[in-house]
Amino acid sequence: MQIWRINVREQRLKREPIPEAWSHLGGRGLSARILLDEVEPTCDPLGPQNKLVFAPGLLVGHMLSSCDRISIGGKSPLTGGVKEANAGGTTGLQMALMGIKALILEDLPVEPGLWVLYLSLQGARFDQADDLAGLGVYETTRRLLERYGEKVAIALIGPGGEMKMEAAGIQNLDKDKVPSRIAARGGLGAVMGSKGLKAVVFDAAGGQKPPFTHPEAYKEAQKAYNKALMEHPQTHAYRDYGTAAMVQLCQQFGSLPTRNFSVGLFEQADAISGEHMRDLLLERGSPSNPTHNCMPGCTIRCSNVFGSQDGKVIVTPLEYETIGLMGSNLGMDSLDTIARLCFQANDLGLDSIDVGAALGEAAEAGQMGWGDGELALELLDEIRRGTPLGRVLGNGAVATGRHFGIEHVPAVKRQAMAGYDPRAIKGTGVTYATSPQGADHTAGLTIRDKVDHLDPKVQVALSRGKQISMAGYDTLGACIFAGFGFAVSPPGTIAKLLNARYGWNVPDDILQVLGKETLKLEREFNRRAGFTAEDDRIPAWMTREPLSPTNAVFDVAEEDLDSLYNW
Amino acid sequence: MQIWRINVREQRLKREPIPEAWSHLGGRGLSARILLDEVEPTCDPLGPQNKLVFAPGLLVGHMLSSCDRISIGGKSPLTGGVKEANAGGTTGLQMALMGIKALILEDLPVEPGLWVLYLSLQGARFDQADDLAGLGVYETTRRLLERYGEKVAIALIGPGGEMKMEAAGIQNLDKDKVPSRIAARGGLGAVMGSKGLKAVVFDAAGGQKPPFTHPEAYKEAQKAYNKALMEHPQTHAYRDYGTAAMVQLCQQFGSLPTRNFSVGLFEQADAISGEHMRDLLLERGSPSNPTHNCMPGCTIRCSNVFGSQDGKVIVTPLEYETIGLMGSNLGMDSLDTIARLCFQANDLGLDSIDVGAALGEAAEAGQMGWGDGELALELLDEIRRGTPLGRVLGNGAVATGRHFGIEHVPAVKRQAMAGYDPRAIKGTGVTYATSPQGADHTAGLTIRDKVDHLDPKVQVALSRGKQISMAGYDTLGACIFAGFGFAVSPPGTIAKLLNARYGWNVPDDILQVLGKETLKLEREFNRRAGFTAEDDRIPAWMTREPLSPTNAVFDVAEEDLDSLYNW
Repeated sequence: MQIWRINVREQRLKREPIPEAWSHLGGRGLSARILLDEVEPTCDPLGPQNKLVFAPGLLVGHMLSSCDRISIGGKSPLTGGVKEANAGGTTGLQMALMGIKALILEDLPVEPGLWVLYLSLQGARFDQADDLAGLGVYETTRRLLERYGEKVAIALIGPGGEMKMEAAGIQNLDKDKVPSRIAARGGLGAVMGSKGLKAVVFDAAGGQKPPFTHPEAYKEAQKAYNKALMEHPQTHAYRDYGTAAMVQLCQQFGSLPTRNFSVGLFEQADAISGEHMRDLLLERGSPSNPTHNCMPGCTIRCSNVFGSQDGKVIVTPLEYETIGLMGSNLGMDSLDTIARLCFQANDLGLDSIDVGAALGEAAEAGQMGWGDGELALELLDEIRRGTPLGRVLGNGAVATGRHFGIEHVPAVKRQAMAGYDPRAIKGTGVTYATSPQGADHTAGLTIRDKVDHLDPKVQVALSRGKQISMAGYDTLGACIFAGFGFAVSPPGTIAKLLNARYGWNVPDDILQVLGKETLKLEREFNRRAGFTAEDDRIPAWMTREPLSPTNAVFDVAEEDLDSLYNW
Repeated sequence: MQIWRINVREQRLKREPIPEAWSHLGGRGLSARILLDEVEPTCDPLGPQNKLVFAPGLLVGHMLSSCDRISIGGKSPLTGGVKEANAGGTTGLQMALMGIKALILEDLPVEPGLWVLYLSLQGARFDQADDLAGLGVYETTRRLLERYGEKVAIALIGPGGEMKMEAAGIQNLDKDKVPSRIAARGGLGAVMGSKGLKAVVFDAAGGQKPPFTHPEAYKEAQKAYNKALMEHPQTHAYRDYGTAAMVQLCQQFGSLPTRNFSVGLFEQADAISGEHMRDLLLERGSPSNPTHNCMPGCTIRCSNVFGSQDGKVIVTPLEYETIGLMGSNLGMDSLDTIARLCFQANDLGLDSIDVGAALGEAAEAGQMGWGDGELALELLDEIRRGTPLGRVLGNGAVATGRHFGIEHVPAVKRQAMAGYDPRAIKGTGVTYATSPQGADHTAGLTIRDKVDHLDPKVQVALSRGKQISMAGYDTLGACIFAGFGFAVSPPGTIAKLLNARYGWNVPDDILQVLGKETLKLEREFNRRAGFTAEDDRIPAWMTREPLSPTNAVFDVAEEDLDSLYNW
């Protein structure tokens, strides 16, 4: 494996050996290490000093179920801090087949213009792509697959990234070549846009799977993991309902973001639930019928293809976070409408969480009525056209709330909260507050844990454990749901997989070791960027305004929040 | 003297004795002390926890030349840190006549609506003012003077403050009852708007000048100060040319902000110079002919009334910072055009520096051509109408730069730089970087000092001294230009004035004592709000991109910047 370093100004590739200090890391941990080693933490995220890092996780390359994720990192234009966003799909796997440990994109182009960076075992080529300017990710993908063949992996941006919007992510193709797996959060699409890249095409032709040091030991550990994963009840729930199963769970806890996080219950939750979605998928005969996998080899199959009554695909996939932020959060009671909003956000290459929260701000400001799907679609079209209001919305919830002078912005470190109101699920609130990533449920979701979610005393320990594990999984390239399998696998399964693949001798608690190292690297980057304890806070209004029906406020003590990194 | 504390929710006034720890302070220092004692530094600036403080300086109340300024303070919606903005005019004097050491406005109103807070020796009254909603400050003033009589002082906001824009200031009447003395910077107008106040009317009827403990000693010190001030050559320059004298000085140093701080020389500088303005004022027969005073008793008379060819007033006053930011910075070569832009910014109640810089961002983004006055006026009209683009512009340069994805934003702590490019006047750059206020020339301007402005080694000591003095002057209520007089007065003049008035026994270096205390209070507020050394930085692009014609970059070492507060 090598480091591929590309200067977009010179349009030149350098292939470098892996520095000793980077070799034990992958994915999120490696990205954090590279940023800390090479990027000035106070730099302009859209300036020449920022870098964009693509790093497959340590386990990527063998279609181990749910473990082929790609981590993308850089200094975030949204939060001003460290950023890693990861995604499923095929990018991670193809990079591993090409022997790329990490791809580092540096500098800014000399002239404005749009390029496709084509990477193969022969090297790098910059292909002019001005004809793709302003195109959505779906049409762009169609053209790129025509141009580069059906076998490539593609990471690409939409108009959002081209316009350097702070809610712009980087889309990746799923195994069916649909640009649907977005490294959504924190504005990394804007960083890619600033570097003049519409797409990076990975052509692994001639590549091969990374070798194993001990193939038999690997197979044995893989078998144990697969068995554990398949037997886990949660695997089946996700296969049946996708992540949308979360709607009813959040409704039960009174944590479903509703009408800009003003209440925790949505009267029409049934109509947007996973159960209802499954009924629709079965009734309408979706290609995923009801669910399918986004990465080759994944046995969980949590994803879906949501179609309309006439059998046409509306969007792939429709996930819980989108349903929460663009559904209940906007007072929308129709999955068809939410799916249409989701399609537009995807096509624009925008984070549906931050844009959903931005629309919630717009609704609170009277720019649209709650539940007005047509107007919401019009507002998304303003983003596409780059109108002034559209640019505000495309910069996410904090920009939009500021724009309208609204205090009720559900965000931490300028990143919008996901679909769990932190007043009712306080452990996830602790994660929102203290994660170096800003408000991010994937950094440590606590809703499935058997605790009193309203008790402020128990949340920090809970969140700490989750955040360490998740930083570990993100470093492995493992999906959040792979954790269900690893958690019930024989002790040391992860260590066995790594040791068998790399010939290492890592301890059984390697997940925690990697997670702690990753969090510390990220936190150090943020510290150097100027972050303090005051950035590790839930917005004041959520500590003051009770959330119906629990009437809870976020009341985890600040000194407890500040103790999260004391482990 | 008393503290007047008003809760806008309860619409109730409490008159309180002055706490011991506040008694030796006034103006900026007192405001900082109150904020640190009473406002949670991490609160939402537009939420109920923020307070708005009006505090006349320690010398206010006797029409001592240039020493009747009002300081207004609060947590800044623009910077997120401590904020003090001060202004001339009559507000400070009237408050002193009423015996108000500080007015503290607290909480938020229960219902939306607009009020005039009428203060007299009889107490406080909230008068409904929904009829004033959306009116500019000129028409509002006309109506308020009709309603409350010609003798009152008024602090008021325009549409910008009502819309809670981050570049909104608080206007004050000058001695001719023109709303022209704006406490412009940092968005305090938005704080006033959030508290539902269109205006605070100060009616000093029945009030009297604060008593002297030692009247003779006061007179003696006053005489010495007046003499020194009158003899200072700078006093005469300001009387002749107003602050616009600065245009040619900046041009000489190559520090005149031109076309969004891209170069330091403006080809048409002559056409917007103080010399040319004087010619126009004399030729057109302005009422100020050429200059007049903004505060009763001021002998400097730096202000002007700028009229058009047909003898009609365009705006009062036209200051250098506006000429720099709305003139050369936008490529405008006509004082008439700049004056029209200034009038609109004033009427909207907006900071012409931050809005000028915002227009510079808009021009760089291609929204208007350099020098296109008509389009600039149209953009200001967008602000008035509260269109999406207008709201972006009204939130200042950083919001606008972010909106368009532009790196070239001349700002520190989210506040736009004034009319001195920090690459060519590096001492002022140090002030921009390290002042707790954000980029602010009044916090410590160094351009008149006899140093090599390009030598990075000597700037920190220079800026430190200036910042301490200015924080002291702001605490006294003394205009930046009063400093010329005090600097050449007999040693201990300020101490004599204070000791004679209050019966104190302060040392001769009281200016520095007060300045240091003030800066430390402000810096502590910012520290608690989460500011770090990383916030004390000039934007990276100015450390990288040389400024023609000096080809200087901002290269004061970061460790030197971080030593500023080591005194």
